[in-house]
Amino acid sequence: MLPTRDDLHFLLFDWLHAETLSALPEFGHADADSMQAMLDAALTLAESEFLSHAAKSDANPPQFRDGRVELMPEIAQALAAYRDAGFFGMEAPLEDGGLGLPYTLVASLGGIFSCANVATNGYAFLTQAAANLIREVGSEDQKRRYLPPMVEGRWYGTMCLSEPQAGSSLADIRTVAEPLADGRYALRGSKMWISSGDHEISENIVHLVLAKIPGGPAGSKGISLFIVPRRHVDADGNAGQRNGVTLLGLNHKLGTHGQVNCLLGLGENEPCIGELVGAPHDGLRGMFVMMNEARIGVGIGAAMGGYAGYRAALAYAKERRQGRAVGERDAASPMIPIIEHADVRRMLLRAKSYVEGSLALCLYAARLIDDAKTGSAEAQALVDLLTPMVKAWPSDYALEANSIAIQVHGGAGYTRDFPVERLWRENRINAIHEGTNGIQAMDLLGRKLLADGGRAFAQLTARVEATLAAARADAALAPLAEALAPRWANLVPAIQAAGNAARTDMDLALANAYLLLDAMGHAVVAWLWLDQALTASRALSGARGPRLSLLQGKIAAAHYFIAWELPTKDAPLARFAALDPLCRDLDPEVL
Amino acid sequence: MLPTRDDLHFLLFDWLHAETLSALPEFGHADADSMQAMLDAALTLAESEFLSHAAKSDANPPQFRDGRVELMPEIAQALAAYRDAGFFGMEAPLEDGGLGLPYTLVASLGGIFSCANVATNGYAFLTQAAANLIREVGSEDQKRRYLPPMVEGRWYGTMCLSEPQAGSSLADIRTVAEPLADGRYALRGSKMWISSGDHEISENIVHLVLAKIPGGPAGSKGISLFIVPRRHVDADGNAGQRNGVTLLGLNHKLGTHGQVNCLLGLGENEPCIGELVGAPHDGLRGMFVMMNEARIGVGIGAAMGGYAGYRAALAYAKERRQGRAVGERDAASPMIPIIEHADVRRMLLRAKSYVEGSLALCLYAARLIDDAKTGSAEAQALVDLLTPMVKAWPSDYALEANSIAIQVHGGAGYTRDFPVERLWRENRINAIHEGTNGIQAMDLLGRKLLADGGRAFAQLTARVEATLAAARADAALAPLAEALAPRWANLVPAIQAAGNAARTDMDLALANAYLLLDAMGHAVVAWLWLDQALTASRALSGARGPRLSLLQGKIAAAHYFIAWELPTKDAPLARFAALDPLCRDLDPEVL
Repeated sequence: MLPTRDDLHFLLFDWLHAETLSALPEFGHADADSMQAMLDAALTLAESEFLSHAAKSDANPPQFRDGRVELMPEIAQALAAYRDAGFFGMEAPLEDGGLGLPYTLVASLGGIFSCANVATNGYAFLTQAAANLIREVGSEDQKRRYLPPMVEGRWYGTMCLSEPQAGSSLADIRTVAEPLADGRYALRGSKMWISSGDHEISENIVHLVLAKIPGGPAGSKGISLFIVPRRHVDADGNAGQRNGVTLLGLNHKLGTHGQVNCLLGLGENEPCIGELVGAPHDGLRGMFVMMNEARIGVGIGAAMGGYAGYRAALAYAKERRQGRAVGERDAASPMIPIIEHADVRRMLLRAKSYVEGSLALCLYAARLIDDAKTGSAEAQALVDLLTPMVKAWPSDYALEANSIAIQVHGGAGYTRDFPVERLWRENRINAIHEGTNGIQAMDLLGRKLLADGGRAFAQLTARVEATLAAARADAALAPLAEALAPRWANLVPAIQAAGNAARTDMDLALANAYLLLDAMGHAVVAWLWLDQALTASRALSGARGPRLSLLQGKIAAAHYFIAWELPTKDAPLARFAALDPLCRDLDPEVL
Repeated sequence: MLPTRDDLHFLLFDWLHAETLSALPEFGHADADSMQAMLDAALTLAESEFLSHAAKSDANPPQFRDGRVELMPEIAQALAAYRDAGFFGMEAPLEDGGLGLPYTLVASLGGIFSCANVATNGYAFLTQAAANLIREVGSEDQKRRYLPPMVEGRWYGTMCLSEPQAGSSLADIRTVAEPLADGRYALRGSKMWISSGDHEISENIVHLVLAKIPGGPAGSKGISLFIVPRRHVDADGNAGQRNGVTLLGLNHKLGTHGQVNCLLGLGENEPCIGELVGAPHDGLRGMFVMMNEARIGVGIGAAMGGYAGYRAALAYAKERRQGRAVGERDAASPMIPIIEHADVRRMLLRAKSYVEGSLALCLYAARLIDDAKTGSAEAQALVDLLTPMVKAWPSDYALEANSIAIQVHGGAGYTRDFPVERLWRENRINAIHEGTNGIQAMDLLGRKLLADGGRAFAQLTARVEATLAAARADAALAPLAEALAPRWANLVPAIQAAGNAARTDMDLALANAYLLLDAMGHAVVAWLWLDQALTASRALSGARGPRLSLLQGKIAAAHYFIAWELPTKDAPLARFAALDPLCRDLDPEVL
C-alpha cells in the first residue's frame, strides 16, 4: 500500500508549506505544481514498478552463484524505470545534471518508493547518499569523474563502514590503506553488512570505504575515507577493469531480501585501489555527512514501512466481516466489518498515530534541512538535535504499528498471503542499522543535549511554546496543550539531572539515556501532532467529503496520541531523572 | 537455548512448592525426586532431539506434494523419541496408561520442549489437549477406543474450530453434520488454520471438529462437537480406511514452519463420518475444556519463546566484544563484552523481567489447576480469572523480549545465523491464536470481572495483600510493596467504572477492555515478581555461587519490573477508568 496523495498533500503543503521553498533562489524552478507533479509521478511509478514485485523479491532472495549475485530481474527493471524518470538525480543540483529538488520533496519521493518496496528503493537511496557525500567532500576531479554517472543512475553507491569485528565500534576497524606512489591507496581488509554491496545491475559500484592509513592516530581519529570503485575509473571517468573488491558471501536476512547484503573482501587476490576523499584521518567527518542523511532516511523508511502496514490493515478491516456488535443478540444477523469493533478502531488509531506521527517527524526534519541550506543556523541546530529521534522513534513505533497491522488481520496476517508480515520483518532492521537506537540515545543526550549548553533544546522549546500558545486559543485543542505543556516542561529537570551527574559520573549520566530518547521522542511527536491538529482545525471550515475526513482524522490522532500515548512516558522520564543506577550497577552474573 | 535447570528448580520447588503435590492422593507417585528426574530427562531430550532441528525445520517448511504433507524426517524422529520416553502420556492418569503427573509439572515439561522447538512440540501438545477433551466429555466407548493410542502417542490430535469465513466468530461456522441412521454423522464443510491438520507421521489423526446439526439453534448455542478420525476407527479401536477429510492446502506462515497448518475439506469427495461428543448443540462447552488448556499452553509457549531469545541474547552479550567503557580514552585498549554497556544490561534485565515474569505467571496458573483438581473452588475461580492474562500477557511481552534479543545481537540478530529472528517470528502467532488478545480482554472484563460480582477478584486481592504484608516486613522489599499496593488498589475503581457503565452501555464498558487487560496483567506480574523476590530473599542466607546469583537476579528483576515497568500502566489504567469514548465513537472514515 502507498501513502495517500491527500495525506502527502496535507503534510507537505497544508502543514509544512513546502510551496514556500520555491521562493528561495535554489528552488525557484520547483513550484507547488511541479512538486505535486513529481509526487504523482512517483506514486504511479512506485505502484507499477516497485510495489508490484515487493512480495516476489521477498520470496526469492538474491543468490550467490559462481561468485556473482543473482537478483530477480524485476529489481533492475524497476530501477531502470526510476532512472529513466530522472529520480536518481532528484537531489543533485541542476548544475550537476540533477533535478535540484528541495530535500523536503526528496524525502517524500524517497518515502513513496520506500513505502512501495523498501528493498528495491535501497539501491537508489544509497546511490543518492553516496553522491551527496562525494559532492560535499570530494575533490573537483572526483566530482567530475564520479558524480555524472551516479546522478544518471548508471553507477550505484554503497557505504562500507562495518567489519566483522567492528559494527557499532567504528574506532576498531582494521582495514588498512597503504599509500601508493601515484597518490592512490591499496586497501586490504573486509567489510561486513554492505547493502547493495555487489550485483550486476549497474555499470559500476562506487564504494565509500572507511580504512586506516598506517601511522595515523589510534581509534576514530585515525580513520580515513576512500572511494573504491568496483571497476577502475580512468582520468576521463570511464569504468574499466575490475578492482580488487571480492564478494565473499551474502548475509541471509530476516527481511528486505531484495536488497543484497554482502561481506566484501578488499585486496584479497588482486590489489584493491582507492582514492582518498578529504584529508587523511578525517574520514569520519565526511562519512557523517552521509550518515546523517542516512539516519533521516532510516526514519523515513521506518515510517513508511509502518505506513504501508497501517494502510493494509485499514483496508482489511473495512472489508473483512467477523462477529457482531456488542448487544446484538440475533445470531442470524449479518456479520459486521471488523472496523466496527471498538478494539479494532483502537488498534488502527494507535497505528495511525505512530505512522503518520513518524512521517510528520521525518518531514519536519527534512524541511529543517532545507531551511538550514538557506543559512538558518537555528534550523541546522534543530535538525542535529532531532536526528537521533528521527532515526529511532519511527524504528520503534512504526514497527509496533506493523505488529498491530498483523493483529488486525488475525490469523491471515501471520501468512504470506498478506503483506503485513513481510513489512514487519522488513522494518525490524531500522532500530539496528546506521547506529543502533542505543547509540542514538547516547548521541541525543551526550552530544546534542549536554554538549551545547542547552541552546538547541531552548530553540526547540520556543517552537513548542508557539504551538502551545496557538492551541490554547482553540477551544477544542486547548486540553491537548494543557496535557503537553507540563510534560514538555518535565524534560528540563530531567536533562539537568543528567547534566549534573555528568560532571562526576558520565557513565551514570548516560546509562539510562534510552529512556530519555524514548520519552523526548514521544514529547516531540506529541508536539507535532498538536501542530498538525492546529493546521487541520484551521482548514475545517468549508472542507467536506474525503478532505473533511482527513482533517478530522488528524485531529482524532492528535487527541489519541496526547491523551493515550504521551502519558505512558511520565514514569520512564521520572525514572531517567532519578538517575536510577539499577541497570548500570547490575552484576552481569545475576542475569 | 533451554530454560536453566536452576531456574526451573527455583520456580517449581522454592517458589511454588510443587513437592507438596505429592501429598495429594492423585499425585502420591510423583515425589520431588521423580519430578526432578522428569525435568532432567526432558531437558536432555529437548536438547538432543528438539533444539537440534529447530533452525533446519524453519528453513525447510512442510511441502504439499501429491496430496500429501512432506515433513522433515527429524520431526518424526524427535516425536518418536518423545513417545518412547512416555511424554505423550505425562498428563493422562495412571489408569489410562499415562504418567499421571500434576499439571504444574506437565506445564513445565511441555515448556521445556516448546522452548527447544515450539513447532515440533505442537504436535504433542495438541494431542495431549485433544486426549484431555475426550477424557473429560467423551463417552466410555469413545474413551476406550481413542484414548489409549493417543496416550501412547501413536495417534495425534487436532482442534478444528475456524473456517475461512469464521475465525474469531465461532457462532458463524457453516460446517454441517447430518445425522446418519447408525447414530453417527456425515460432516460437510471446510476448516481453516488447522495446526497438525494432516501429515504422515502418526498412525491416525483424531480431529475434534465443531459443526452444526441442522435444525439446532442459530449462533453459538447450535454448535456441536465431533470426533472425526483421519482413518475410520472400528468398535475395537482399530484404525482402518481413510475418512473423507481432505487436505486442500497448506498455509505459508511467518513462523513455526515445522508445525504444518492446513485447510481441510470435510466430505468433499467421500463421506466424512464423525461421532458426536457430549450432547447435541453443547459442543462449545466441551471445546472450552480444550481451549482453556490451550490458552494456558499458548502462554507457556509464548513465555518460553521469549525465554529462548533472552538466553541466546545473554550468551551473545557475554561473548561479543564491542566498544569500550564510557570514559575510556585509550583507543588501543581491548574492546569489552557488550554486557558491560549499561544499556545492554538494561535491555537484558527488561527481557528477563518479561520472560521469567511470564513463566512465573503461567506456572502459578498451572499450580492453581492442580489445586482446583483437588477440590478448591477458589483455585478454580482464580485460574479462570487469570487465564486471559496468562494467554495474552506473555504473547505481548515475551514477544517484546524476542525483539530485545534481536537488538542485543545488532546486525547479527537480523540474520539467520542466530536463532533470535526465528524466535521472534515464531512468537508472533501467540497474540492471535486461541482467541486474539482483544478477545481475551473482552473475556477478562465481561465474563471474569463483571459477571461474578467481583468474587474472584476479591480472592485474588487477598493473595496479593498477603504478599504485600510479607514484603513490608522485609526492609529491602518494602519499597516494592509500597509501589505495588496503590496500583493494585487502583484496579478497583477502574473495574467499578466499567461495571457502572455496563448497566446502560455495555459497548462503552467493553470498548477499552484491552487497556485493563494490559494494566492488570502488569499488576499481576508485578505481584508475582514481588512474591518471587520474597522467596529469593528468604533463601539468600547461606546461598553462594550460581545459586546466590540466581536469587539476586530474581530480586533485581522484581526491582526493575516494579520500579521501571509497572508505572508505565498508570496512565492507561486511568484512561480505561475514564471510559474515554474516543475509539468507540470514531468514524471509520477518518482513519
